[in-house]
Amino acid sequence: MTTAPPLPPPSARTRVRRVSERAHYDPGVVANIAQAALICHIAFTDATGVHCIPTSCWSTDGYLYIHGSNGSRMLQALAAGEACVTVTHLDGLVLARSAFHHSMNYRSLVAYGRFEKVESEDEKLKSFAAFIEIISPGRWPQIRQPDRNELAATTVMRLPLSEAAAKIRNWGVKDDAADMNIPVWAGVVPLQMVASHPVPDPGCEDMPLARLRIPGAWCGIT
Amino acid sequence: MTTAPPLPPPSARTRVRRVSERAHYDPGVVANIAQAALICHIAFTDATGVHCIPTSCWSTDGYLYIHGSNGSRMLQALAAGEACVTVTHLDGLVLARSAFHHSMNYRSLVAYGRFEKVESEDEKLKSFAAFIEIISPGRWPQIRQPDRNELAATTVMRLPLSEAAAKIRNWGVKDDAADMNIPVWAGVVPLQMVASHPVPDPGCEDMPLARLRIPGAWCGIT
Repeated sequence: MTTAPPLPPPSARTRVRRVSERAHYDPGVVANIAQAALICHIAFTDATGVHCIPTSCWSTDGYLYIHGSNGSRMLQALAAGEACVTVTHLDGLVLARSAFHHSMNYRSLVAYGRFEKVESEDEKLKSFAAFIEIISPGRWPQIRQPDRNELAATTVMRLPLSEAAAKIRNWGVKDDAADMNIPVWAGVVPLQMVASHPVPDPGCEDMPLARLRIPGAWCGIT
Repeated sequence: MTTAPPLPPPSARTRVRRVSERAHYDPGVVANIAQAALICHIAFTDATGVHCIPTSCWSTDGYLYIHGSNGSRMLQALAAGEACVTVTHLDGLVLARSAFHHSMNYRSLVAYGRFEKVESEDEKLKSFAAFIEIISPGRWPQIRQPDRNELAATTVMRLPLSEAAAKIRNWGVKDDAADMNIPVWAGVVPLQMVASHPVPDPGCEDMPLARLRIPGAWCGIT
């Protein structure tokens, strides 16, 4: 089996320098991490300095989408300048025999660029439909869709994931040879986002957990 | 029962403006969110622009701690300028009868300030002990502690959580009265970080999940 050579980073600022064996520049790897995201963190600057704001997100077709009120200071700042967006999935704690080699397993992406507004009413509506269908497949036709006022009051923005890098650690303990006989438990504690039994709003019936399919979350327990 | 008046925000940049009924400025609320964190996201700027980097963290005594290699560009930039740090716990999806009122439940904090280096070898060692004991109580005396070279190669930094705000949404669906008869399931899908059965490193025994206690994660399933 031949392996394709690793892709180069798309820009100087996406090149991973610390622990570079964890770096991935393949757009497919970046897309998978983005598509499993329910939230992202966005760094941007405005007149008051640098900010890091969490917000809900979804991803299709190589873009990361966010939305919010037209009055959002973040969305206004994003329209005016560059941003850096990060998605992080924490997958486990790596408990080593030495303090120094403790680590975490994770999948993350860091993307740079400028968000663009989704301007047309039709495109905004399609964006929201995609978001709802990602969170809860089949739900969009069942709910009341946004009216003109709601659409007009909401800004949708998207960032192309073209200048992005992923970083993944998904392996076990890497202790020094000299530490292998230390009598302490070593291994990985897997961590995962898990949905638990849905809590119905008054007037709604019980919803079996197994009916859900949520990006990045396991829906297997009740 | 009397309720204390809400505390004012510690600074102009921590005042929550969007959906301000979710804002909390009580240091105890901020501390609880920080102490349940395994990772945070840090926004900072350097000569190449604005960055958002995820990193492991721990919190004691009103500080948020991070660490990394002395060579880390982020840690070097944090020593030189202001940062904004965010901790986010996603607690649920709020599925409403209208697209517009879909939401998420979460607990987040945003803190501003300048990280300071933990300089002395003794203080660094105490910081690492605190981190390990938070992740896995009782573990510190069992593992090989950092030697002088490891300590010298590692930077520990901390940010006081004095200029910080929390934002919490922890309630159910808030649909418009006109939408209450739409025949679609509405409610909250709780989400939680869950640890699953530990994977031992070769040579180590099985570790019962019930023995673990991990901040922000439920350790109840096997």
